[in-house]
Amino acid sequence: MEQIGFLPPKPAVLSRRREIVGDLKDLLPEGCLVHEPRSLVPFETDAFVSYRRAPLAVALPETTAQVAAVLKYCHRYGIPVVPRGAGTSLSGGAIPQEDAVVLGLSKMTRILEVDYANRTATVQAGVTNLSISDAVSADGYFYAPDPSSQLACTIGGNIAMNSGGAHCLKYGVTTNNLLGVKMVLVDGTVIELGGKALDAPGLDLLGLVCGSEGQLGVVTEATVRLIAKPEGARPVLFGFDSSEEAGACVADIIGAGIIPVAIEFMDKPAIEICEAFAQAGYPMDVEALLIVEVEGSEAEMDGMLQSIVEIAGRHGVKVVKESQSATQAALIWRGRKSAFGATGRIADYICMDGTVPLSQLSNVLRGTAEIVARHGLRVANVFHAGDGNMHPLILFNANDPEDAARAEAAGNDILKLCVDAGGCLTGEHGVGIEKRELMRHQYTDADLAQQMAVRAAFDPQWILNPSKVFPLEGRPAV
Amino acid sequence: MEQIGFLPPKPAVLSRRREIVGDLKDLLPEGCLVHEPRSLVPFETDAFVSYRRAPLAVALPETTAQVAAVLKYCHRYGIPVVPRGAGTSLSGGAIPQEDAVVLGLSKMTRILEVDYANRTATVQAGVTNLSISDAVSADGYFYAPDPSSQLACTIGGNIAMNSGGAHCLKYGVTTNNLLGVKMVLVDGTVIELGGKALDAPGLDLLGLVCGSEGQLGVVTEATVRLIAKPEGARPVLFGFDSSEEAGACVADIIGAGIIPVAIEFMDKPAIEICEAFAQAGYPMDVEALLIVEVEGSEAEMDGMLQSIVEIAGRHGVKVVKESQSATQAALIWRGRKSAFGATGRIADYICMDGTVPLSQLSNVLRGTAEIVARHGLRVANVFHAGDGNMHPLILFNANDPEDAARAEAAGNDILKLCVDAGGCLTGEHGVGIEKRELMRHQYTDADLAQQMAVRAAFDPQWILNPSKVFPLEGRPAV
Repeated sequence: MEQIGFLPPKPAVLSRRREIVGDLKDLLPEGCLVHEPRSLVPFETDAFVSYRRAPLAVALPETTAQVAAVLKYCHRYGIPVVPRGAGTSLSGGAIPQEDAVVLGLSKMTRILEVDYANRTATVQAGVTNLSISDAVSADGYFYAPDPSSQLACTIGGNIAMNSGGAHCLKYGVTTNNLLGVKMVLVDGTVIELGGKALDAPGLDLLGLVCGSEGQLGVVTEATVRLIAKPEGARPVLFGFDSSEEAGACVADIIGAGIIPVAIEFMDKPAIEICEAFAQAGYPMDVEALLIVEVEGSEAEMDGMLQSIVEIAGRHGVKVVKESQSATQAALIWRGRKSAFGATGRIADYICMDGTVPLSQLSNVLRGTAEIVARHGLRVANVFHAGDGNMHPLILFNANDPEDAARAEAAGNDILKLCVDAGGCLTGEHGVGIEKRELMRHQYTDADLAQQMAVRAAFDPQWILNPSKVFPLEGRPAV
Repeated sequence: MEQIGFLPPKPAVLSRRREIVGDLKDLLPEGCLVHEPRSLVPFETDAFVSYRRAPLAVALPETTAQVAAVLKYCHRYGIPVVPRGAGTSLSGGAIPQEDAVVLGLSKMTRILEVDYANRTATVQAGVTNLSISDAVSADGYFYAPDPSSQLACTIGGNIAMNSGGAHCLKYGVTTNNLLGVKMVLVDGTVIELGGKALDAPGLDLLGLVCGSEGQLGVVTEATVRLIAKPEGARPVLFGFDSSEEAGACVADIIGAGIIPVAIEFMDKPAIEICEAFAQAGYPMDVEALLIVEVEGSEAEMDGMLQSIVEIAGRHGVKVVKESQSATQAALIWRGRKSAFGATGRIADYICMDGTVPLSQLSNVLRGTAEIVARHGLRVANVFHAGDGNMHPLILFNANDPEDAARAEAAGNDILKLCVDAGGCLTGEHGVGIEKRELMRHQYTDADLAQQMAVRAAFDPQWILNPSKVFPLEGRPAV
């Protein structure tokens, strides 16, 4: 899968490696610069394991001022910089290149302020997603976006990718829950965007930074919205005889104006994989399963469920199974959230992240099955159906280069299908290196030129995560 | 109030007026170019009536291609362009300058598509806010953001200002309800941003355009989210003996995780003004009033109201009055939504739009009263309390230049107070020309420089609405 490729390393940077390492050491505290080849191995790739590159060095600053110093230095000498959170990117967003300094935020893990009066938390960028909720849980609050990797992934990485999660149907993705950031620009200037109040005058740079995949600057602190825990929450399983029926049911629930906390979809292969791993109690005699979570008071949950059951009935629902206890509810979610890991036990896989208008769910599921069959592969579908955010897991054998090439080709075809159905290449995993060249299928040249002009307004030299997001051909000269 | 001022007109443009008018006539259908001095009068100002300028001409194109032709022409000759919707801006966003071509979208009023399966409507930019809801109401849907000017204001103007409204507490402001746009760049290139699917890969230019006050391009079509009407909705009045109690009550409702559809605040002067106009049935023996609207099934509304009444009780609520009929509910909202017009019957006023963290509501209300008293003026407060989006109406006599100067000074002091309390200059009315110089109080030079660099990535010549948003000093040379 090497045909996508990285930008060629800059000889002028490679030849100064020793000097750069020495200079960066001087800018950072003891133990904050990794440069021995053996120590660089953990930074060679991320959760999109198709590529592997050793970076020039890894800087692990402890403060915003140190981040600024590293950026200022790299900017001065035109050294590429690849920001990195926990390295859980599924699109290769954090994979370095040989001439790059990886700027890791893993030492910046302090929760700086919790402000219940304004329902906000201000944290350093290396704080993990789950640890925000953990810090406020006892007081009855949580941070809403919940990527499956939430135990490991950092809020800085979440901002870079505008991460979502199963519970984003009701509460929105990262951009809807991010109120402000402190960010270091490529030349070392520190700016602050947003804050605790609604909106901000002038251009919405905060929204622009969210999802910018480390190309506009390096976020060192974030202020996020806290949400009060609901009185109760209940996941309910709905089993169907076909994926089409389940997909149509989802569209009708949302079309009726009902917004549960989550509507997750699993097809037969995904049900089997997750049940074998988690013993979640999923029904095994159905072709497709929806996990619908409602929340609120008992009366509110009952009311919403009644409407959903009625709609599901119109789509021939075969099994409706409510969780009977907190343990059962946790198991249902454990099964869903372990889907990627559980799949990894039985096969290699690549996970697509196409998003489509809800009316297209059934069509695109059918088209996905056809594409994968044509390439002689298998697929498991497990995804955020309420958002139209599909995650086909294409199963293949990574030790067989031909199989790997087939999987990549099938993935490309599926993403093009999503775009052609009025959708897009990525809902929450980002473009990274994986979908960079497919951006041409999503956008016209004029669309891309305008995005790149905005990118250049932050980083005229294109040194921030330069091999990612934008197709290599057609970039402005730097 | 002339000290804020506009950019000096370009002599090279003014001297070519006749030629420009002739050229633009050739680009547009019969009757689509306004240039006679008498006919220009309606375009001289907007709802921020403190300034008045006759533009060079007004182009009223009927198609995106015509918008592109006008922009391409103006771009070629460096002619300033001021986009205009319905001219309801409260910050002077649509006030022209002498050397500018006003680009009015008022002839582009077609609803292009209603797609219930995906809950979207695609409309031309000149469609009014309310007519979107009117078009889908019979089918049980509505468009959520509801500025008080919704009968007149256009969706294009809403996008330019990222408009809000009373019901945005639950449903979000324009940016949360906008899914895609067709936009013409300054050189006439047409791009499309967003679409019907969640999120979009690459940079979030759609979010950037929302609230960009006509400086990044001209939106000609928009795809917005439709929302299913709730089963029922009920506004309830809560009267308090002090603004402080009412403000603290709001903070506690939101802090408890309760999100009604709306929490509107009116102080004594606002209650008197609105009640005299609308006979809405507001209690007259209280110092502050909250209009809290809940929605859903009867059971859901009862449940939510019970929690709110309990919280209000802890803050010494004096009157709780539920609307007993649809007519009464409509009257309650008519009183609130006519606040600005009703105030205009008794005095001239300027309306501030500062937004603060909820914990600061009571403090800032107290500070506002002190500031206005110090300037020897009166104030009425009527605003979106749940969002922390304050609207003090400073009453003054526009025929007395000294009184007008005092009002402007008091307004500036109030906005600075909001910023110093962790808030911002504008929640929904935009910066326009009114708050342009105050941007220095909100942002550092580095913050502003980055915003201006992004602006320049769309409009390197700065011809789009050039006198607005960014302080005149410190701009990049063009």
